Amino acid sequence: MTILLKQFIMISVIIETFLRHGTDGSFPHVHRHNTGSLGGELDFLAQFCTMYCIIQLQTIDNVWEPSQARKLGPYFHDGRRRIDYVLTYTVQKPVSMSPTSSGSFVRGLRQSLSRSLRRSTSSAQDDPENASELGCQEDVKRVRREEFEDNLMEMGLELEKDEGTKIPGVGFLKIHAPWDILCREAEFMKLKMPTKKVCPIMIIIQLMKNHNFFNKMTKPLQPNVEDSKMETIKHLSYPFSREKQHLFDLSDKDSFFNSKNRSLIVHGVLKRTKCVRGKHNVGLISLLGNGVYTSAYPLHDVSNTSLLLYDEWARYSIFYKYQPIGLIRKYFGEKVGLYFAWLGVYTQMLIPASIVGVIVFLYGCATLDDNIPSMEICDPRNNITMCPLCDRVCNYWKLVAACGTARASHLFDNSATVFFSIFMALWATMFMEHWKRRQMRLNYIWDLTTFEEEEEHPRAEYEFRTMQKSVRVDSRRERRGKPKKKVSHHFFASTVKLTCTDRMPAYMTTLVMMCFMICATFVVVLGVVLYRIAIMTALQLTQTPATNVRATVKTTAAIINLIIIIILDEVYGALARWLTVPKTDKSFEERLIIKSFILKFLNSFTPIVYLAFFRGRLVGRPGSYIYVLSSFRMEECAHAGCLMELCIQLCITMLGKQLIQNNLFEIGIPKLKKMLRRRKTGMDTQEEELEKKLRRHEKDHFLGPFIGLSPEYMEMIMQFGMVTLFVASFPLAPLFALLNNVIEIRLDAKKFVKELRRPLAARAKNIGIWYTLLRGISKVAVIVNAFVISFTSDFIPRLVYQYMYSPDGTLHGFVDHQLSFFNVSHFRPGTEPLEPMLGNQKVEVCRYKDYRDSPWSDTPYDFSREFWCILAARLAFVIVFQNVVMLMSDFVDWLIPDIPKEINVQMQKERTLFVEMFMKEEQGKRILWNNQGESPCHLSTHPLSDYLCTVLPRSNVGNEHLE
Amino acid sequence: MTILLKQFIMISVIIETFLRHGTDGSFPHVHRHNTGSLGGELDFLAQFCTMYCIIQLQTIDNVWEPSQARKLGPYFHDGRRRIDYVLTYTVQKPVSMSPTSSGSFVRGLRQSLSRSLRRSTSSAQDDPENASELGCQEDVKRVRREEFEDNLMEMGLELEKDEGTKIPGVGFLKIHAPWDILCREAEFMKLKMPTKKVCPIMIIIQLMKNHNFFNKMTKPLQPNVEDSKMETIKHLSYPFSREKQHLFDLSDKDSFFNSKNRSLIVHGVLKRTKCVRGKHNVGLISLLGNGVYTSAYPLHDVSNTSLLLYDEWARYSIFYKYQPIGLIRKYFGEKVGLYFAWLGVYTQMLIPASIVGVIVFLYGCATLDDNIPSMEICDPRNNITMCPLCDRVCNYWKLVAACGTARASHLFDNSATVFFSIFMALWATMFMEHWKRRQMRLNYIWDLTTFEEEEEHPRAEYEFRTMQKSVRVDSRRERRGKPKKKVSHHFFASTVKLTCTDRMPAYMTTLVMMCFMICATFVVVLGVVLYRIAIMTALQLTQTPATNVRATVKTTAAIINLIIIIILDEVYGALARWLTVPKTDKSFEERLIIKSFILKFLNSFTPIVYLAFFRGRLVGRPGSYIYVLSSFRMEECAHAGCLMELCIQLCITMLGKQLIQNNLFEIGIPKLKKMLRRRKTGMDTQEEELEKKLRRHEKDHFLGPFIGLSPEYMEMIMQFGMVTLFVASFPLAPLFALLNNVIEIRLDAKKFVKELRRPLAARAKNIGIWYTLLRGISKVAVIVNAFVISFTSDFIPRLVYQYMYSPDGTLHGFVDHQLSFFNVSHFRPGTEPLEPMLGNQKVEVCRYKDYRDSPWSDTPYDFSREFWCILAARLAFVIVFQNVVMLMSDFVDWLIPDIPKEINVQMQKERTLFVEMFMKEEQGKRILWNNQGESPCHLSTHPLSDYLCTVLPRSNVGNEHLE
Repeated sequence: MTILLKQFIMISVIIETFLRHGTDGSFPHVHRHNTGSLGGELDFLAQFCTMYCIIQLQTIDNVWEPSQARKLGPYFHDGRRRIDYVLTYTVQKPVSMSPTSSGSFVRGLRQSLSRSLRRSTSSAQDDPENASELGCQEDVKRVRREEFEDNLMEMGLELEKDEGTKIPGVGFLKIHAPWDILCREAEFMKLKMPTKKVCPIMIIIQLMKNHNFFNKMTKPLQPNVEDSKMETIKHLSYPFSREKQHLFDLSDKDSFFNSKNRSLIVHGVLKRTKCVRGKHNVGLISLLGNGVYTSAYPLHDVSNTSLLLYDEWARYSIFYKYQPIGLIRKYFGEKVGLYFAWLGVYTQMLIPASIVGVIVFLYGCATLDDNIPSMEICDPRNNITMCPLCDRVCNYWKLVAACGTARASHLFDNSATVFFSIFMALWATMFMEHWKRRQMRLNYIWDLTTFEEEEEHPRAEYEFRTMQKSVRVDSRRERRGKPKKKVSHHFFASTVKLTCTDRMPAYMTTLVMMCFMICATFVVVLGVVLYRIAIMTALQLTQTPATNVRATVKTTAAIINLIIIIILDEVYGALARWLTVPKTDKSFEERLIIKSFILKFLNSFTPIVYLAFFRGRLVGRPGSYIYVLSSFRMEECAHAGCLMELCIQLCITMLGKQLIQNNLFEIGIPKLKKMLRRRKTGMDTQEEELEKKLRRHEKDHFLGPFIGLSPEYMEMIMQFGMVTLFVASFPLAPLFALLNNVIEIRLDAKKFVKELRRPLAARAKNIGIWYTLLRGISKVAVIVNAFVISFTSDFIPRLVYQYMYSPDGTLHGFVDHQLSFFNVSHFRPGTEPLEPMLGNQKVEVCRYKDYRDSPWSDTPYDFSREFWCILAARLAFVIVFQNVVMLMSDFVDWLIPDIPKEINVQMQKERTLFVEMFMKEEQGKRILWNNQGESPCHLSTHPLSDYLCTVLPRSNVGNEHLE
Repeated sequence: MTILLKQFIMISVIIETFLRHGTDGSFPHVHRHNTGSLGGELDFLAQFCTMYCIIQLQTIDNVWEPSQARKLGPYFHDGRRRIDYVLTYTVQKPVSMSPTSSGSFVRGLRQSLSRSLRRSTSSAQDDPENASELGCQEDVKRVRREEFEDNLMEMGLELEKDEGTKIPGVGFLKIHAPWDILCREAEFMKLKMPTKKVCPIMIIIQLMKNHNFFNKMTKPLQPNVEDSKMETIKHLSYPFSREKQHLFDLSDKDSFFNSKNRSLIVHGVLKRTKCVRGKHNVGLISLLGNGVYTSAYPLHDVSNTSLLLYDEWARYSIFYKYQPIGLIRKYFGEKVGLYFAWLGVYTQMLIPASIVGVIVFLYGCATLDDNIPSMEICDPRNNITMCPLCDRVCNYWKLVAACGTARASHLFDNSATVFFSIFMALWATMFMEHWKRRQMRLNYIWDLTTFEEEEEHPRAEYEFRTMQKSVRVDSRRERRGKPKKKVSHHFFASTVKLTCTDRMPAYMTTLVMMCFMICATFVVVLGVVLYRIAIMTALQLTQTPATNVRATVKTTAAIINLIIIIILDEVYGALARWLTVPKTDKSFEERLIIKSFILKFLNSFTPIVYLAFFRGRLVGRPGSYIYVLSSFRMEECAHAGCLMELCIQLCITMLGKQLIQNNLFEIGIPKLKKMLRRRKTGMDTQEEELEKKLRRHEKDHFLGPFIGLSPEYMEMIMQFGMVTLFVASFPLAPLFALLNNVIEIRLDAKKFVKELRRPLAARAKNIGIWYTLLRGISKVAVIVNAFVISFTSDFIPRLVYQYMYSPDGTLHGFVDHQLSFFNVSHFRPGTEPLEPMLGNQKVEVCRYKDYRDSPWSDTPYDFSREFWCILAARLAFVIVFQNVVMLMSDFVDWLIPDIPKEINVQMQKERTLFVEMFMKEEQGKRILWNNQGESPCHLSTHPLSDYLCTVLPRSNVGNEHLE
């Protein structure tokens, strides 16, 4: 039985081969790219064989069980040609004429017939009034598709269609690139491929020798992938060129280009192919944008790689291991690989940061009882009467009441915090440098050192707008009686451009909307502040016990803030996307990222900035408190400063955002979407076993589309901001970030492997604009931390007291020094407290926290000399801190070379090896010539050599003898 | 006669051609690189013809006058093969056996004989005890040379020797690269060459259309060079490859590679060629370092280019014109081209800066009489008694005496200065951005976009040290009885490296020396300060009229400073060179630059920094002045601040440095050196007409060697520092710099064209480390200017007075506010002035310029509240200024894309054109195959195609049909 089958296959394949070389274009869906003169003689045979083949293939389909796996895999119906790319489109009416999925030959025949008919009547069909609008639209789309497919075949690609077989309403166009197309495109793309030449990676060998112990230690951390172990030799890479085929190991042509490269190549062809029949030539992206095709994706590869990826990367249980970056790159391409490498480096770098953070926090806990100011505040003998915190309704109070917050503040407001700020600024620089070097190493290992990023093709939206414009221009020309300007094919984009005037409305909209949204953010923050003030005032009026209430108000406000932040985040993301219409994909992405970054950044950090720098600054003094909206007093901080509240806010924002965004948005919503998509296509969850019978491209159709790495990066950048910007007030931030990221990596991995369609394996040398944003944040972080330390914390006043005013050089008396005097008789009428007594005593002079002159000086209640002195000290600290840290960062930046030394050496060596190899080749050639007794005429410069050459017989001397 | 001559030449050339292909190595100095089987048959003929040729050539030499020009040009004796490179060496004893300069064939014959003799006895000769040391050294050198030359010939280069003919004691090795070597090397170097394909530069056409007026305006500014006019089309470039020869226009093989590229190619071969016969393989750089060769240079090209360069670039009379950058690059290569382009951009950018600077200065002049503080000081009704400026010997004085300096100070200390500082900070950023874009444009026009910089080969000194080390290692091994480690050829540098321990002494020396030199700078500055104090004290004691004396002292001190700066500059340059021994040329250059930059920068700016920030700060107050060295009082500034003196110092340093360095060092010393060199070789100035008979390579020998662009860049960077760093105090600095640079460009041009040997046409994408230094300076400039404005000028005190203390919001009363009170009775005994009277009145209270509490307050003479308030304001200004300017700079940096948009579009278009071209080629091929009735078997992927192909006859299908 099997022998018979094999014979059948052999025969059919032979026939197919003959057909391929033999037909001259009469079978549009058969592969007519390389037709020879044999075609003429075999014409009859071909037509006969087609039918024969179809019958055979159908038979095989039903009988041959062992090929089931291969059949379900990413192959054409012949089970031989790989599907490198899939385009899908909607089929409104299920096509009734080709019910069998394998009858593509017949269908191809029929379609070509129907198309030629249609073409002759196309002018009639193009008229929108002749047909119903929907049907017409569908027809236009089909015509477009057919033209595009014809062009693709002209480019040499092989196609197979699969319309509404298992999944009704969806048609699949499967694309396969044959070997010669792969070669040609790889040459155009200058794809670097491994050559036969092997070069040992010296450095790693040395490392192995020296750090054997280190290696053994990290063994359990390494993923269980061959790739990471065997990297002691490297196949030198060279841009693929058919003229230098002898360099490459072409013994296994099927696997020479792996599935990643194949899809990349096909994508390249697809991008270049244009429909020119219509008025304007449009590319694949426009076709996708107009709904001619609904989606385009390469297929997941159910090979070892994919399984290995799942086992060694996408499981939570191996959270402690390194990621198999090489494997990720091999499967998903460089861009995704770089994201995960970056995430890995970031997470790794968070480990030391969180250790130091925890130590700083523990130091705060340990020195809690040694802190002189809080001891003084808590000391019951200390009998300081404080002024009321609001007019009329508030009472005098004892400083001892602030004992709790003062002690708690010390946790985050001690000298270790300053050290930690400097540490984190340098940490950020080190992280950048480390990443630059890692990126360079990856670039070397992935052979991207000479890769130039190509400018992308115009986006669909942009193309659409230029089309509109050129239509307008044309019609104006016609009205003026000028001849229609002939649009050249290839410079289309450059002849009709959107000028400033075309873009002006969009720019203005963007500007206005951005301003509006920024204002909205501020308004929301103000709203929350007013909520807090109102509640506080209400509670003060009802005289409830203060401490519990305060905590409640703070926490609820923070949670409200958080919820608003998360909601606005999504809104802003959508708005930013709606506002952006630039020319190319790359610039579109960049602008979109910048816009949504600005909005999200402001959204996340405005409440925190308010808390850190504005709250409690403009409160006035007892007797003349400052009011907003004529009835609400400005918020004041607790006695020991706002640092504590800042910390609570940061903690809630960070934890809440991570929990909600991770759990709800990244896990929950995709699941929901998937369910909805299934419901839509009429599949119930009970039908899951049917799914097992689906072919690869049909399975992938049900996965979520890959929408780019931006959301992932954005989330991480925001987290980086949280970790670095206010780190002076919250030393545990790195720890929280670390815990989140360990989960995040595996979560993303799972998503990429299981839940999304395979992304196009885009090449990229670096992480692009994200690096710029990271740099920006780490620069801003230095300044913000300088201000937090000098203005929000009491670090500078303590220092100034200790070295300028303290009688014994300690902090004893600091609490008293901080407090100014207020004469109760200076209350304006109507603002004095209702109860003029505290305990049993009549209060005559109360104290408040500010540096102001005493009531009995020449200038009562003016800012005192101490105030200006401390202000100067604070400002001086900012200048020194900022410049010292920036200098240190720049120095570290300069000290660590961007390109690791060993990579430099290695690259140099490779270059030498290649020159040597080519020199040897040259010598080989010369010897050959000499043996043949001929001079290399076509290379000689001498004017007479041509004369000489004509005398001697000339033969072709190529590279072939070296192959 | 001429016909006869031509025949002669024809015959000789034919014979030569036969010889070239016919000899098999028996003529070492003839070109044996591609010997064929014809050689055997032609052996006899060759030997006969050699003699014939020589006779003929000699005849021609004497007879053919018109060829004189060509003969004196850069050609071999045959007048045909270009000299692409020249190596020189010393010939101790004038060689007596070949007196005629054209007898190279004969000499070659004789030398080969003598060499083979020498070789057989070389072991005896190598023994140093057999011969005198000098002679032996010479012999060793000659052996080395011969080996190197053999290797060169093996690489395919053609050589000709010229020993001590016209210039006794100097041997020339002339190198010519034949066509096939040029092709091969160009392919290895991936040299981009213009193809036949032409692409219009759209943008420039558009520019032409739109800005016709602009064009006409700038016409007289454009250099009169075809290049700059005709750049509307561009030949697309493609890396040269012999397999793609059909792309290139090879009709004129002589000029396809111009002299620049030829020398670059030969240099590449020279660098790669190694002497391996000795114990260690050494390259050309080592040979040059060891004195085996004395110099290596390509020849000046006496073509149109060179003359045009002189006419349109190197004359002072065309100082107002743009430079012909394209021409410069074509002749001197990209590195030099970039330097002049940079200098041009810098000079151009200085124009707006100097205009604004002049306006700011004029504004100062115009508002001189409206300035309230100086009016108040000069008002004779104003009767303020000032405290004595020193103890005992000084007297009380009237504030009116400070009228002159107060008025002068206003010139540089007004509100326009602040604006100018901000302007210049942004100007610096704009300059950087403008340069980045210009560089990118040049990269595009010069086809460097894909050029990767190669790591250079080890430097001679480094090679020498590694050699020493490996000798040491070997001897140690031998002592231990281990076998000698075999040193592989190509990884020599990587097997024996200088490790940390080897470098430690050097590092330590460097560190110590750097510290020492930095200290020396400080000591020198301190010395000058002491000189000034001493002279001032002496003069005060002798009671000479103050004003004239002060000016004299200031000026002499500044001049002394200048002289010391210039001397130390040279010393430090030499020391830095001596201290630096890294591995490669590039890193050597970088480290050398950094070291000498630090030293020179400190040297130039320490006196200025002292003047701006330290002088007059720590002077104490009347009654307790601070003394240094127990007798000299710390210097004080004039009443209106130090800004004035800072300005004088800057002015003298800048002008003096530029005048002396330009005139003396750049013009004088080279001339002197040239004279000395002539004297050395025994040529007097009277023999100049003899020079005219010298051949090109001999003429070039007398020119100065090219020592790199570092000194030129360094000078400009220092100037850039002067222009930006203290620009707040000296708004005319850009003008001075502009005037200097206009001359500098033509001066450098002259030097490069006429006075220096032609530099190697090194390729470079950017100006390397200089850009980093520029960035660094412009960053530092922001901070320095912030400090100058807030601390050195009175801008902030004025502002604070105006908005906080002034009763009417004007500056009236500011002078009074600035002055504190001093009670004369508080003078410590012995420090009161000798004369207690001023005029007729007894002084009881005098005033001094400081913010201190009055004698009758609680805390007499403590810093007052105003002091702290103004300090806070100053510091706040620094923070605001620094961050705002930095933010603005970063914003400008981000706003202006590094790659100009039109270049991006153009590059994209070129890429598309190439893909199209190749696609067409592919289609052409396919049609050809189809016409031939064959399938492209060797490209097909189908498993059966090989089977099919064997049936059909296979032919070679290459690119030839497209040629």
